[in-house]
Amino acid sequence: MSRKYVFNATGGPEVLECIDTAVPAPSAGEVRISVKAIGLNRAEVMYRTGHYVIDPVFPAQLGYEAAGIIDAIGPGVSGLRVGDAVSVIPGFAFTDYGMYGELVNAPARAVVRHPETISFEKAAASWMMFTTAYGALIEYGALSAGETVLIRAASSSVGLAAIQIANMVGARPIAITRGQAKRQGLLDAGASAVLCTDDKNIAADVERLTAGKGARIVFDPVGGPGAADLIRSLHHGGIFFQYGALDHSDIPVPVFDLLGKHLTIRGYELFEITTDDEKLARAKTFIIDGIASGKLDARIDQVFDFDDMAAAHAHLESNSQIGKIVVRV
Amino acid sequence: MSRKYVFNATGGPEVLECIDTAVPAPSAGEVRISVKAIGLNRAEVMYRTGHYVIDPVFPAQLGYEAAGIIDAIGPGVSGLRVGDAVSVIPGFAFTDYGMYGELVNAPARAVVRHPETISFEKAAASWMMFTTAYGALIEYGALSAGETVLIRAASSSVGLAAIQIANMVGARPIAITRGQAKRQGLLDAGASAVLCTDDKNIAADVERLTAGKGARIVFDPVGGPGAADLIRSLHHGGIFFQYGALDHSDIPVPVFDLLGKHLTIRGYELFEITTDDEKLARAKTFIIDGIASGKLDARIDQVFDFDDMAAAHAHLESNSQIGKIVVRV
Repeated sequence: MSRKYVFNATGGPEVLECIDTAVPAPSAGEVRISVKAIGLNRAEVMYRTGHYVIDPVFPAQLGYEAAGIIDAIGPGVSGLRVGDAVSVIPGFAFTDYGMYGELVNAPARAVVRHPETISFEKAAASWMMFTTAYGALIEYGALSAGETVLIRAASSSVGLAAIQIANMVGARPIAITRGQAKRQGLLDAGASAVLCTDDKNIAADVERLTAGKGARIVFDPVGGPGAADLIRSLHHGGIFFQYGALDHSDIPVPVFDLLGKHLTIRGYELFEITTDDEKLARAKTFIIDGIASGKLDARIDQVFDFDDMAAAHAHLESNSQIGKIVVRV
Repeated sequence: MSRKYVFNATGGPEVLECIDTAVPAPSAGEVRISVKAIGLNRAEVMYRTGHYVIDPVFPAQLGYEAAGIIDAIGPGVSGLRVGDAVSVIPGFAFTDYGMYGELVNAPARAVVRHPETISFEKAAASWMMFTTAYGALIEYGALSAGETVLIRAASSSVGLAAIQIANMVGARPIAITRGQAKRQGLLDAGASAVLCTDDKNIAADVERLTAGKGARIVFDPVGGPGAADLIRSLHHGGIFFQYGALDHSDIPVPVFDLLGKHLTIRGYELFEITTDDEKLARAKTFIIDGIASGKLDARIDQVFDFDDMAAAHAHLESNSQIGKIVVRV
């Protein structure tokens, strides 16, 4: 028997229950992992509270990211061996797999041997953030040197990953955040400038910072009314990536900007990358190169014990963190 | 001296003034055309009323489409000769060229020899409508057989062109219109079904008509609040093309549809095609093939005399027409 977290009703962190479970041998195309660290994601909070793109099926397991050591290999799996230190890349549904456990099965195609230079905590923290940011900025956005990208919720783990990826390709990351509290932290994290949505003057500030050129990409997990000013900040042919729905209200798209600048507003999710073998292979190469070179380095805010999962969720919901929250098993 | 229309203040059709002017010999890269027919466009009404993407510079000339006979050739022009029967494709700004005249200069790259089988009236009516619809549906949208496209303002000339292009590639055009008045006319024009925005139930109707699949493309010149229901009608990976701004208010994009279905909202203008030589060449080939085969056939609502330009504009603004309004010179 081993322990895993599930929930039987949507609600606050207290709905998370730690149960004993027998984990079966891995099926075809799966590996079983003895988990050393779990990376927490906002998707899991949204799923727990009933606000995610899919509804929970009770008892609901959850968890997209983990790192650990392979302890069993299912039929038909090649390229991975028992004893390998691996990370799990989110590329499945919670209704099929959940990484919040001591021992978990995972689909082999979503498992990657991580560079030996990094810890299990860093490995568990890396793949959601870097793959999510990579997909929008590089795979679809083709961000290149000298271009400007606006990164909203910049102090989130994906926001920080986007800052690092922008710097890795020579582009200019401008961080968008709510208040002044995180300004210095974001500059230290590599942002070339920090703008606060409280100032209500983003488009004018971006124009000033880019000598009138505007941004080529916006990368935004929030949406809602505040997105309009970011859309206005784009230059001709710019792309707005909406990759979350932290604000559930409609996005008021200004039609003359959309039309006059031939803008694209794109709903984007990590799974577009992780469920496509060719895109996933390009992502793995880019991210492993970045980690090996030191240009990509997952920022960890705090590490919690496995017993303290509810506290870890509560901390994630506090929005006071900069970087990733990790649970050590 | 020859006559042309200009306006010196924004306003109703009455601001249009017919003046005498001396048209110079064509400059490098231009041809001069003795105009036989002019195609009217909503862009010209928006420009005349001060609601277009560019502001008028007075005295403001206007007009995107004309057909006639080349009467002089500027330096450096190849492939066109004096006496050729040609059409003008919108690929320039009104601040540079205006087709509302008896004798006009036009950039040679935007001039095409039209099939001999069609009249000057049809030729003057064809290129805006078919090139606009072609660019979104085919060049960017890659619409293919069996797919569904929702066409809003379907009784406009571009809407009718989109219906024909969808049928030409074996796709299914569903016309979206305001009231019941144009239902039969749109079915006669090739729409596979007609839905009325007055019913407020578009997404459910589209689901029913497509056996739950939804549409792959929406093609909409209106925008505004009514666009939200069309966005909801898209299936996974669908594209919403906004190609006009008849409603100036924001487009309220439903974020869970955008995100959960990885939708694209794209501001699109004809000029993306007509100012790019490769895209324009593909458009010319597709449209000339379609006209020659009879699958593309510009629908003309009414032909006015050159002296009655103001009445022609008023008729365009009445929204009672089905198809193109043409002025005979």
